[in-house]
Amino acid sequence: MNNRITELFGIQYPVIAGGMVWCSGWRLTAAVSEQGGLGLLGAGSMTPDVLRDQIRKVRAATSKPFGVNVPLMKPNADELIQVIAEEQVPVVFTSAGSPKKWTSWLHERGIKVAHVVASSLFARKCEDAGVDAVVAEGFEAGGHNGKEETTTLCLIPAVRRATSLPLIAAGGIASGQACLAVQALGAEGVQIGTLFALTQESSASEAFKQRCLNLQEGDTKLLLRKLSPTRLVKGGFYTAIEEAENRGASPEELLAIIGTGKTKVGIYDGDVENGELEIGQAASQLCGTQPQSVTQVFQRLISEYREAKAAL
Amino acid sequence: MNNRITELFGIQYPVIAGGMVWCSGWRLTAAVSEQGGLGLLGAGSMTPDVLRDQIRKVRAATSKPFGVNVPLMKPNADELIQVIAEEQVPVVFTSAGSPKKWTSWLHERGIKVAHVVASSLFARKCEDAGVDAVVAEGFEAGGHNGKEETTTLCLIPAVRRATSLPLIAAGGIASGQACLAVQALGAEGVQIGTLFALTQESSASEAFKQRCLNLQEGDTKLLLRKLSPTRLVKGGFYTAIEEAENRGASPEELLAIIGTGKTKVGIYDGDVENGELEIGQAASQLCGTQPQSVTQVFQRLISEYREAKAAL
Repeated sequence: MNNRITELFGIQYPVIAGGMVWCSGWRLTAAVSEQGGLGLLGAGSMTPDVLRDQIRKVRAATSKPFGVNVPLMKPNADELIQVIAEEQVPVVFTSAGSPKKWTSWLHERGIKVAHVVASSLFARKCEDAGVDAVVAEGFEAGGHNGKEETTTLCLIPAVRRATSLPLIAAGGIASGQACLAVQALGAEGVQIGTLFALTQESSASEAFKQRCLNLQEGDTKLLLRKLSPTRLVKGGFYTAIEEAENRGASPEELLAIIGTGKTKVGIYDGDVENGELEIGQAASQLCGTQPQSVTQVFQRLISEYREAKAAL
Repeated sequence: MNNRITELFGIQYPVIAGGMVWCSGWRLTAAVSEQGGLGLLGAGSMTPDVLRDQIRKVRAATSKPFGVNVPLMKPNADELIQVIAEEQVPVVFTSAGSPKKWTSWLHERGIKVAHVVASSLFARKCEDAGVDAVVAEGFEAGGHNGKEETTTLCLIPAVRRATSLPLIAAGGIASGQACLAVQALGAEGVQIGTLFALTQESSASEAFKQRCLNLQEGDTKLLLRKLSPTRLVKGGFYTAIEEAENRGASPEELLAIIGTGKTKVGIYDGDVENGELEIGQAASQLCGTQPQSVTQVFQRLISEYREAKAAL
């Protein structure tokens, strides 16, 4: 299982847990790293103080490498990055912004940098910026998404051709078979969101997990193309957005419907009707199951991967 | 390379060329079957008389098995099916309708039946209807598409779990690596559209081929969700639809913009500004190339597949 991704991060398996808002706290992060993957804290839903506390709790729970995901469009992104540097976190995954902004600064402090992209154009920008690895995330991923709507099956070959950087595939990967599939396309690692968001160790509410573990195919859709394309779970919040879009609502009207803090309401507080629910398309593959432990998820991924490889 | 798909159709490679309107005439069909795959005529753009003529021309060009794709929502679908039976075509792929409608009738006449679906729900209906194989086609495919918007990476595992039928993956498959990837997900064959639509043998116009061989990522999008979701290529027709949708146009308004015969105008006549252009997301992987022969496409697919398999 050794390749450029495991060597870069000093991990056993090239499996990264996406740093998801309201899901990726210290418990999930430490559990994934303990299993030999790379856990990422989701700083997008944290204040700098909370992030510092969470980093220290990860360190108390595991001595293995871990990282933090920082969505660069967050107003407090600069402060979050400062905390990461002060706490000497070994790895940062940046997203939703320019890979040029922080990469050199983080490198000077000995921190490894990966950046999330949704197109080969941005993958090349990552190479120019000197990032250590690129995450290529397809249309099937939950939450914020690329404008091109390129699926993982089409995106990975495009990014593989565009850059020689170590390449991590994301979006729609929820089984060992899918890990093998993206490897066939040229990926060297996987970033998995949905599966880990719905584990016992995820800090999301039980109500959110239960809702997401009962989704049929088609129960998540990409909406908000006029603002920032986002994959949402069907429900009251979704319906309000969809109806507004169907009648041709302006970006301003949509912003008013979105309001503020709705991901906390939906994912963390568990008001699945009024809150904003973000999960990937792959959730429907888990329909009818109960939250698993991170250990169980790793065991399943590894056994499925081995079986699928043997079957080829 | 022997599996249930090659045995079912009596072919050498489990590679099916999608039966595409205005692209899949006798030249493309015969060329794919000659290479050891299964060529399909695209009856969706043919009158019964034209279909009969095309079937006879395929037979004059190859003695190998081939088939016809019939979109069941076409007003003349019944007549097309009659011609297929009279001409004793060995294989029919049905789509855009119920697999129950024709399967028994075709089986009684010794004709193999595959049906195209975009969800595991419809895959189970195929099993109930007794079809011989199911084609699971993901969001990245060109032209008409499923309402669930499930990508190939997410759809194949779902359909694999829902049915024990021989399973053909479609949508976003334009390389030997992608063939291997969907095999890892449980598919036993591939249906490839985009790659073959843009070959020398495709009956599409040169202008259409050149437009589609110059697409960037994001240059096709799924539109027309209020009618029947369809992946279109950016251009004048696309822009008119997109603008109407953005202002909240009704289905009736959209139908008026679509008009009739626009796929012929775009694909066959080559008016790429005013016509309706349909191609899959994978087209951007071919950006900057020239139309290849079907022989070249097969050689590339096979060598890429073998290299990718050896690399795993």
